[in-house]
Amino acid sequence: MKTIDKQQLIDGIASGDTRMLSKAITLAESTIEEQRNIALDIIEHFGPQENTFRIGITGTPGAGKSTLIEALGTEILKDSKRKIAVLSVDPSSKKSHGSILGDKTRMNTLSASPRAYIRPTASGNQMGGLAKNTRLAMLLCEAAGFNTILIESVGVGQGETEIAQLADLFVLVLNPGGGDELQGIKRGIMEMAEVIVINKADGDAEKQANLTAKEYSMALHLMPEYDSKWMPKVLTISALKNKGIDVFWNKCLDYEQHVLVSNWKGTHRKKQMIYWTKKSIHDLLLARIKSYDVEIAKELKEGVLPEKLAQKLLK
Amino acid sequence: MKTIDKQQLIDGIASGDTRMLSKAITLAESTIEEQRNIALDIIEHFGPQENTFRIGITGTPGAGKSTLIEALGTEILKDSKRKIAVLSVDPSSKKSHGSILGDKTRMNTLSASPRAYIRPTASGNQMGGLAKNTRLAMLLCEAAGFNTILIESVGVGQGETEIAQLADLFVLVLNPGGGDELQGIKRGIMEMAEVIVINKADGDAEKQANLTAKEYSMALHLMPEYDSKWMPKVLTISALKNKGIDVFWNKCLDYEQHVLVSNWKGTHRKKQMIYWTKKSIHDLLLARIKSYDVEIAKELKEGVLPEKLAQKLLK
Repeated sequence: MKTIDKQQLIDGIASGDTRMLSKAITLAESTIEEQRNIALDIIEHFGPQENTFRIGITGTPGAGKSTLIEALGTEILKDSKRKIAVLSVDPSSKKSHGSILGDKTRMNTLSASPRAYIRPTASGNQMGGLAKNTRLAMLLCEAAGFNTILIESVGVGQGETEIAQLADLFVLVLNPGGGDELQGIKRGIMEMAEVIVINKADGDAEKQANLTAKEYSMALHLMPEYDSKWMPKVLTISALKNKGIDVFWNKCLDYEQHVLVSNWKGTHRKKQMIYWTKKSIHDLLLARIKSYDVEIAKELKEGVLPEKLAQKLLK
Repeated sequence: MKTIDKQQLIDGIASGDTRMLSKAITLAESTIEEQRNIALDIIEHFGPQENTFRIGITGTPGAGKSTLIEALGTEILKDSKRKIAVLSVDPSSKKSHGSILGDKTRMNTLSASPRAYIRPTASGNQMGGLAKNTRLAMLLCEAAGFNTILIESVGVGQGETEIAQLADLFVLVLNPGGGDELQGIKRGIMEMAEVIVINKADGDAEKQANLTAKEYSMALHLMPEYDSKWMPKVLTISALKNKGIDVFWNKCLDYEQHVLVSNWKGTHRKKQMIYWTKKSIHDLLLARIKSYDVEIAKELKEGVLPEKLAQKLLK
């Protein structure tokens, strides 16, 4: 990127130009503060987009998330008022760039639609950073008129809790058979999911899928009530055979209605913004630790206590 | 604790009074800054104790660490110039206070000796906090004349890396059979260990223990050279039958000689102090985030970007 013309980006995004949108997201992902600040200015220019629907989709590798997003996205696009942005927060993406390309090519129908935009969130060293950039990417997509955001994440590491801080609706994708621990899902994720889908419920696995769904349904009933007063649902689907995707999307719409009517959507987004403010303060403070390196080297002499030196440096 | 007499504590510690030592450690563990600062003052008063030997001992629950410490400690005490402090950093201690008492009563010989002091490091919400307090407890023990410190930790969570930031020598305790992953040890710990002991090498398990030791020996040879130029050793022992404990202790003494001669001990301790300074700065900065709660609530209005608000608040 040679010179960055903020106004050009704003105009492009306002007109739904995905090339300009991609450029702005790249700025948001930049580790150079000035570049990232331009992205923040652009987001601020457009202001909050309240009439969007953010769906977070988490599941272990192999759960069939990409196939599910392709199927769900195609179902969503039947509604001509919907425009979809797919953002993936995949920690494996750093290592195997091929997997992201693979995902993209697998999402044939979606990527062919002018009402869909697919973008893996790259860069960032930790999962936290990844999700942070994803938030800005999401806001930029919304500014460009994409009103339905699908955020894909792998339910391992700390990313899965962060995705709940991005999304209005949190979907957990599981496979037939095995408890959540057996499926490599961390404890506590189930309690966060508003909709659990047992994917790959086709052929021989259908019976097992129904059993798994029943088990999770029972387990969910034992859990404390959600702040949103929503009753979590368990569904069996087959993204590959396109079975149950319409029911799944309708359940998502039920949830969207529920949180709109109950005003939870606004409350929830406000809580999320408090989280992201604290997270940003945390990140900025952490960045400051580096700036003490020289002073530490200078002052840490024989007989100086690290704990006292820290107090002194921060005074 | 009614009024805290710093001088009384200093005098007590100087004379090796373990009651005063225990009081000072309790201050070091306090979440009240003023109390903790008194402990820091006391540590500062005594200054760094360079002629001490800090041994970190890590292993999964059930590896036989307490029995090993009892046996090793008894062996060490044969040297009349040695005084031992045993500090345990056990995350389970918060839940089952009984287990620590159990450990204490199991260490019959040690706890009966006037040249041994046993103290589990309690309190602290995270492992990090636990190890942080353990560091101060260690320094206080050294001030009281205990020149050989045995720090016990469970090799799970993040504690095992922190213990390497406390100790001069890092010992990993394993059992016969199974790789480190099978034994529930996190990846990377093996690369940190200067001595690996295969405990419970007695009776039927002796053959298996020798095989396990051979496997680990071979694995260690494939690893990059240690900064200390020390060649890591694998030993088979039986703490219960007191077999191989003398060889184990001699290996520890070899290491102590090695790092003294090569000057690594001082370099290593200095690196550790940089780590603890950064850690302390980090902790102090994290504590500051809370102080922004009111401002966040006040300023986080419609249209305000969390990322921009964070920048503004920290300006």
